[in-house]
Amino acid sequence: MATKTSIHPSVNELYQRLAADQLSNCFDRFDPQEKIRCNYCELGVSCQLCSNGPCRINEKVGATLGVCGINADGMAMRYLLLRNVMGTSTYTYHAYEAYKTLKMTALGNTPFTITDKDKLYQMARDLELNTEGKPEDVAVRLSDFLIWELYRDYDEPGKMIEVYAPLKRKEVWRKLGIYPAGPLHELKDAAASCLTNVDGDYVSLATKGLRLGLSCIYGAQIGLELVQDILFGTGMPHEMDVDLGIFDADYVNIVFNGHEPFVGVALILAAKDAVNQDKARTAGAKGLRIYGSIESGQEVIQRFQKDEVFRGLTGNWLTIEPMLATGAVDVLAMDMNCSPPHLGPLAEKYGATLISVSRLVRFPGIHHFLDYKPSEVREIAQKIIDIAVDNFKNKRHGKITPKIPANIQKAITGFTPEAILKTLGGSIHPLIEVIKAGKIKGAVGLVNCTTLKNGPQDYVTVNLAKELIKRDILILSGGCGNHALEVAGLCNLDAISLAGPGLSEVCRSLNIPPVLSFGTCTDTGRISLVVTALANTLNVDTADLPVAVTAPMYMEQKATIDALFALAYGLFTHVAPDPPVMGAPNLVKLLTRDLPNITGGRIAVGSDPVKVADDILAHINDRRAKLGI
Amino acid sequence: MATKTSIHPSVNELYQRLAADQLSNCFDRFDPQEKIRCNYCELGVSCQLCSNGPCRINEKVGATLGVCGINADGMAMRYLLLRNVMGTSTYTYHAYEAYKTLKMTALGNTPFTITDKDKLYQMARDLELNTEGKPEDVAVRLSDFLIWELYRDYDEPGKMIEVYAPLKRKEVWRKLGIYPAGPLHELKDAAASCLTNVDGDYVSLATKGLRLGLSCIYGAQIGLELVQDILFGTGMPHEMDVDLGIFDADYVNIVFNGHEPFVGVALILAAKDAVNQDKARTAGAKGLRIYGSIESGQEVIQRFQKDEVFRGLTGNWLTIEPMLATGAVDVLAMDMNCSPPHLGPLAEKYGATLISVSRLVRFPGIHHFLDYKPSEVREIAQKIIDIAVDNFKNKRHGKITPKIPANIQKAITGFTPEAILKTLGGSIHPLIEVIKAGKIKGAVGLVNCTTLKNGPQDYVTVNLAKELIKRDILILSGGCGNHALEVAGLCNLDAISLAGPGLSEVCRSLNIPPVLSFGTCTDTGRISLVVTALANTLNVDTADLPVAVTAPMYMEQKATIDALFALAYGLFTHVAPDPPVMGAPNLVKLLTRDLPNITGGRIAVGSDPVKVADDILAHINDRRAKLGI
Repeated sequence: MATKTSIHPSVNELYQRLAADQLSNCFDRFDPQEKIRCNYCELGVSCQLCSNGPCRINEKVGATLGVCGINADGMAMRYLLLRNVMGTSTYTYHAYEAYKTLKMTALGNTPFTITDKDKLYQMARDLELNTEGKPEDVAVRLSDFLIWELYRDYDEPGKMIEVYAPLKRKEVWRKLGIYPAGPLHELKDAAASCLTNVDGDYVSLATKGLRLGLSCIYGAQIGLELVQDILFGTGMPHEMDVDLGIFDADYVNIVFNGHEPFVGVALILAAKDAVNQDKARTAGAKGLRIYGSIESGQEVIQRFQKDEVFRGLTGNWLTIEPMLATGAVDVLAMDMNCSPPHLGPLAEKYGATLISVSRLVRFPGIHHFLDYKPSEVREIAQKIIDIAVDNFKNKRHGKITPKIPANIQKAITGFTPEAILKTLGGSIHPLIEVIKAGKIKGAVGLVNCTTLKNGPQDYVTVNLAKELIKRDILILSGGCGNHALEVAGLCNLDAISLAGPGLSEVCRSLNIPPVLSFGTCTDTGRISLVVTALANTLNVDTADLPVAVTAPMYMEQKATIDALFALAYGLFTHVAPDPPVMGAPNLVKLLTRDLPNITGGRIAVGSDPVKVADDILAHINDRRAKLGI
Repeated sequence: MATKTSIHPSVNELYQRLAADQLSNCFDRFDPQEKIRCNYCELGVSCQLCSNGPCRINEKVGATLGVCGINADGMAMRYLLLRNVMGTSTYTYHAYEAYKTLKMTALGNTPFTITDKDKLYQMARDLELNTEGKPEDVAVRLSDFLIWELYRDYDEPGKMIEVYAPLKRKEVWRKLGIYPAGPLHELKDAAASCLTNVDGDYVSLATKGLRLGLSCIYGAQIGLELVQDILFGTGMPHEMDVDLGIFDADYVNIVFNGHEPFVGVALILAAKDAVNQDKARTAGAKGLRIYGSIESGQEVIQRFQKDEVFRGLTGNWLTIEPMLATGAVDVLAMDMNCSPPHLGPLAEKYGATLISVSRLVRFPGIHHFLDYKPSEVREIAQKIIDIAVDNFKNKRHGKITPKIPANIQKAITGFTPEAILKTLGGSIHPLIEVIKAGKIKGAVGLVNCTTLKNGPQDYVTVNLAKELIKRDILILSGGCGNHALEVAGLCNLDAISLAGPGLSEVCRSLNIPPVLSFGTCTDTGRISLVVTALANTLNVDTADLPVAVTAPMYMEQKATIDALFALAYGLFTHVAPDPPVMGAPNLVKLLTRDLPNITGGRIAVGSDPVKVADDILAHINDRRAKLGI
């Protein structure tokens, strides 16, 4: 049995089934890797880029530099930057798809509609676009403009950052030379800088990383989230079901997974068509139901209500393999990212059909490729439904014994800057007042994946969140860590009892949980908008606010670019497990001790929830003292 | 002393000086790394992407998959694709700079002129652009168009590939789904596909690699070389001096290094100004001289004659550290890539000043940052000259004992498709006739770096070239490998005596060497244009021609994307040292045995020059037999 599984009973229950069926899974694959870990790679002092290598830094054998001459700091930071190129690419891919979807929707070529017209016009005005004509005309202009933002050169920096960045930060970034170009040029230049014999200076590489972070968040991430609001509505707090107990094996069940909401929404719309419900019933099911998994699911639960067709969110990425073991999934439709590559044998065993709905997603065992195009999404959704109905009839129903855990948790989702303003009665000042009064000591953005490295699944995330709210620190959460908190019950009103006295009082009076579910890792930029509003209102720099960021169980390369953004944005940024930089002494010093004097941000590490919560509180108290509150 | 140094006496002579002065250098850094090589990394079955790892494949301990579930094939191919994202980014960076340079030149904002007007109009006509107005008007239109080609989406593939790709190949690529978008979208999507839990299918990843290769060569590389021809002239064969003996320590000496010609050309233009020569003489020098190093130097020697100011080419990237040890360099001005990062201590010791002329290039010991912008290149060149004159006066002259090897070699450079046509009397048919007659058995594109892995420096490159020409195979060469052949004396008419009887006869009658120096690794696309012309003329597919590609000492990520292009283009592609894929059995099978039935291309490996030459000849003879010649 695996050494580390999960803190969620539902996942553990289904892990038992995977283990009993002798099916390879993430939990079981972790232990053998522990036996053969490379210490050089762990410390970031290993390089596999060129044919002179692979190289390692080991002073004992005289290997103080790689063959090319790069040192430990350059080696570690270069590979860190390269990983962030990948994260930025993925967010930029998502942004480009979102903008094309808005345009195609405005042109009448999708099943979607322009839902939040106020936001469309507000955004167009903010960006100084022509707002004449129908909403569709404005939407076309907006999407063209946002696509162009992706292409921006250094000579003509983007408008999104100009409009959405904190007033005082922009000066800081200009002074540091990290005011960015559009993400396509930034990622080209960052990737080119990582080539052998190009940039061997860890300070320069780190600077490029910070600039890439700003480019990614302002050039891609914020725009795409706002566009998704325009398309599908801006989230407002509402209750949703989460965890694996939401399945009913008597239905034809389609799960959409990934980071994009487009196919998921199209599936919900199509599944509400009586013809499709009839198809499911004709196949012997009670009907057809749609479920969201990880970030794609989160994007949708933020904006949609639970109903007879859309049932809620399953959990985060480590929940995907156990989810298939329920034997209740007919189709897993996967967009863009976070679909682990060994699902094939599990799908086969438990009667599910795997469908890729993004040209990015490929692995053995996927038999249907319905790559997303906005103008084809209606047909794609219909094909998925037809495949699912066939799957129920031929592959699953009566052939697979379902095993559905009893666990269903309530989570309040849909927090957005607009929702917070509404909750506060239309002004951010009441929030400032309770912070000043010390009822809320400060706020933490928890944006996160989940990993087994400092696991079990979600252990540090959930326990750190408990420690933070106990210390009267409000949490705004995003990403797989957010799903963890939702499933663990920290995003509902019962969780108020776990909060400290001041935070409890505020939560009760506003009828909100102590953890505000903001959405996905893609909502990092959206969370920053709340902090930006605070900073601008108080006329202080973001680095001076009693706020922090934590990624207590980061896993991949979207989390790391979010962290680089947080550092450029000036925040105390906790990341765990240790990033692979510890063998690079000057880089560690830069990230932990020098950066506070440069951007105001700094990296903190550690996986002990109590210790980390204390560190964050100390930082928040320091900032409170400096603000004189 | 280092186990492996160089086949070039000049480099060995200066290595002795570096060693005597106890200065860290590539040759000495290689041996300690040999003691601590990671076998997993060598085989491509190591992954450091996410925090569940680092992971390795080791079936003995039950680690048959990474924690996420990726297998050996996916792991190796994913990392290979990621490295090629870097190579594509670098070429795309270069292309973007070239296009902006053309535009700024047309607008009168650079010291450059539009030199090859015929090529400008030809290219504009080929791309169906409006050719009305002055050359400058056409040039602005062309540069805008080429920049847009970089941004092309999948929905509207580029025009460059339409115009410049072999007629029969385009069908093949469309059928395989590898007809590419522009390089910025391709590199975004390729990088995003390399993220953890996105693409775990080695076949899909390899397919994306082939598409990236096509996008890079047609979307960036060919366009940029043609634009550089328009700016600086299209190469025609002429003699040039190469090797480290070209220095004269009594002059103020500026070396430009990297892959772009822009600052180098601006330096030559400025150095011809009598005011600058006077400055040098006033400082006590005999005058001011400019030297080209590696690819930037090669770009310039292809298009410029040797004269009193521009003295020739020093060598390839492993020659850079020894070059500084001549003590004759006042300034090393470095653009874009291929400047190893530990030059600082050498520059300090031997009295040189390091200047970065690209925002990409950074490492410790660079004290001047004059990042290239087309509209500022005149001032940049002037500043470099002033720094060099100061350097001569204050840091070098009389303080450093020069050590300049006696070696000066003659090389005929400047081969282009146009030059070949002219040599052949205006038609490609005489070339076809000598191939048909078997005087020339076939042609090999040798595009290459240099590495110590299967070294000494240039050992395999030079010996393989000798074996190939001995077998009556004509070589078209590019990259650091081309500099190796030039320095080794294979690019002059004396080398005809080393060729087989058929090739000798052809070379004598046309007055050309058996190795045609085509330029840099960036000329891969240009070399392909010759093959494309052959294929189109004969109305056959490129895969059917008696041609092959070799990269006998590849080093970095631009070489690998050139190799992926060659595979997509349908060619037998030899690469050495072994690429890090050998631990991925299905991937190896795909690249060596399955691909011939897919694209017609295939990978071959090995570092024994005789064996490799025999393999290439066998392939060429097979193709000759199939063509019935």
